[in-house]
Amino acid sequence: MPKNPVSLQKPLDVMRNTIDKNVLVDVRGNRTYSGVLEGYDVYLNLVLRNANEIIGGDVKGVHNRILVRGDNVIFVSPSKGDEQ
Amino acid sequence: MPKNPVSLQKPLDVMRNTIDKNVLVDVRGNRTYSGVLEGYDVYLNLVLRNANEIIGGDVKGVHNRILVRGDNVIFVSPSKGDEQ
Amino acid sequence: MPKNPVSLQKPLDVMRNTIDKNVLVDVRGNRTYSGVLEGYDVYLNLVLRNANEIIGGDVKGVHNRILVRGDNVIFVSPSKGDEQ
Amino acid sequence: MPKNPVSLQKPLDVMRNTIDKNVLVDVRGNRTYSGVLEGYDVYLNLVLRNANEIIGGDVKGVHNRILVRGDNVIFVSPSKGDEQ
Amino acid sequence: MPKNPVSLQKPLDVMRNTIDKNVLVDVRGNRTYSGVLEGYDVYLNLVLRNANEIIGGDVKGVHNRILVRGDNVIFVSPSKGDEQ
Amino acid sequence: MPKNPVSLQKPLDVMRNTIDKNVLVDVRGNRTYSGVLEGYDVYLNLVLRNANEIIGGDVKGVHNRILVRGDNVIFVSPSKGDEQ
Amino acid sequence: MPKNPVSLQKPLDVMRNTIDKNVLVDVRGNRTYSGVLEGYDVYLNLVLRNANEIIGGDVKGVHNRILVRGDNVIFVSPSKGDEQ
Repeated sequence: MPKNPVSLQKPLDVMRNTIDKNVLVDVRGNRTYSGVLEGYDVYLNLVLRNANEIIGGDVKGVHNRILVRGDNVIFVSPSKGDEQ
Repeated sequence: MPKNPVSLQKPLDVMRNTIDKNVLVDVRGNRTYSGVLEGYDVYLNLVLRNANEIIGGDVKGVHNRILVRGDNVIFVSPSKGDEQ
Repeated sequence: MPKNPVSLQKPLDVMRNTIDKNVLVDVRGNRTYSGVLEGYDVYLNLVLRNANEIIGGDVKGVHNRILVRGDNVIFVSPSKGDEQ
Repeated sequence: MPKNPVSLQKPLDVMRNTIDKNVLVDVRGNRTYSGVLEGYDVYLNLVLRNANEIIGGDVKGVHNRILVRGDNVIFVSPSKGDEQ
Repeated sequence: MPKNPVSLQKPLDVMRNTIDKNVLVDVRGNRTYSGVLEGYDVYLNLVLRNANEIIGGDVKGVHNRILVRGDNVIFVSPSKGDEQ
Repeated sequence: MPKNPVSLQKPLDVMRNTIDKNVLVDVRGNRTYSGVLEGYDVYLNLVLRNANEIIGGDVKGVHNRILVRGDNVIFVSPSKGDEQ
Repeated sequence: MPKNPVSLQKPLDVMRNTIDKNVLVDVRGNRTYSGVLEGYDVYLNLVLRNANEIIGGDVKGVHNRILVRGDNVIFVSPSKGDEQ
């Protein structure tokens, strides 16, 4: 197996480096969550603090803390979370 | 592997710390359950006490105890459960 | 790992304690089964005795014994089964 | 772990005791199969002999032998199979 | 565990005994494949020779050899394949 | 376990023997890919070279190389790929 | 097991050789992502830098970095990413 000649950002490295930062999380069923990433596991289950739930562009719910199940996640965007 | 420099709330830690507290659980198919969390496992199967089933905003059922299968869970919100 | 300070009802404990009692089982596709729980396994496959199948509020079938596949289960309610 | 105080019918026990008997099998997509159970495995893949496929209430196909994939199974009813 | 008192046809036994014989395979999405079974694996991935693809009753494609992914299989019928 | 009396083409054997040959790949969501098979793995993830993406009968995209995720594959047809 | 007589591009080899290059990623639900591949894992979870999200042909979002969950991926096209 050849050596990897380039820098590599493993998906879970990205998650670890995003702890305590804002993230935007898109989920199946047209749902979006934004908040501060508090934790995650290998299934991409996520814990967010001060989270907004956005459905169809409108804030539908505000949660002090929320556990989003990884199965339904489409993407996690650390950068986008900071902008919001 | 670098040390994690920040505090980390693993998803299952959140579940364990929520035992005997109210939770709001959103499930596929437009269903919501609220009640006192009695137990869980690694699949996010949940046991709720004094649970309401809410479909489309209306309370459809009241359950002394209910086992919600983890496969269908979208999110678990400990904070939101306390408000209700 | 800290000790769990509170009483914990594991999902499969709830199943074991419900053996020989009535349960209500909601399944994907708008199906509900009620009957006496005879058995289960870790996949939440369930065996019910004297079971009714309810689709859209109407009893569609009566079964002396039925094996409901766990994959499709949304919730199992021991208490609700007793009421029926 | 406390002893189980009651009789327990494990799902796969039910399958084993149904070998050579009639079963009714409901499958996703509004399909039903009835026939004599010849075999099964832990995935609930089923082998039926002299099987009818019923779609929307009408017999759509007759099969000397058929292997029904477990993934799509909703329920297996041994008793109901005998009535048909 | 009691001895099984009856003859048992395991699903994969049926597959093995069907090698080099005609089969009819129903697949999700209203697709049917008929052809000579050349091989299979434990996932029910199937290899068919001289296969027809039938969609909505019409032959849509003819394949010298085709690998059908097991995930989508609803049933495999050895007997029905012989009739066609 | 009895010996298999007939020739057997395991699904992954078919894949290996198709390397560097044309294939036609049908995927969920009405998508078809044709191209030269460069590689595969046990999940049926596929690498195609000089690949066309066909949606609803029209070529929608041309790709020098494309990795098609195995999860969505319905069938792989080596022979059909040669004809195109 | 016969030796493989031809060159073989394993799916994960393609991913590794695409690090730091542009990719186009099609995802279920009519979503497309283009960007520079920074990382991946065996589940085909992907990390993209300078990523565009395209829904129905329109750029819907721009992300400095995005983690796309592998479960929803339909294809990854390294060549196509370079063209954009």
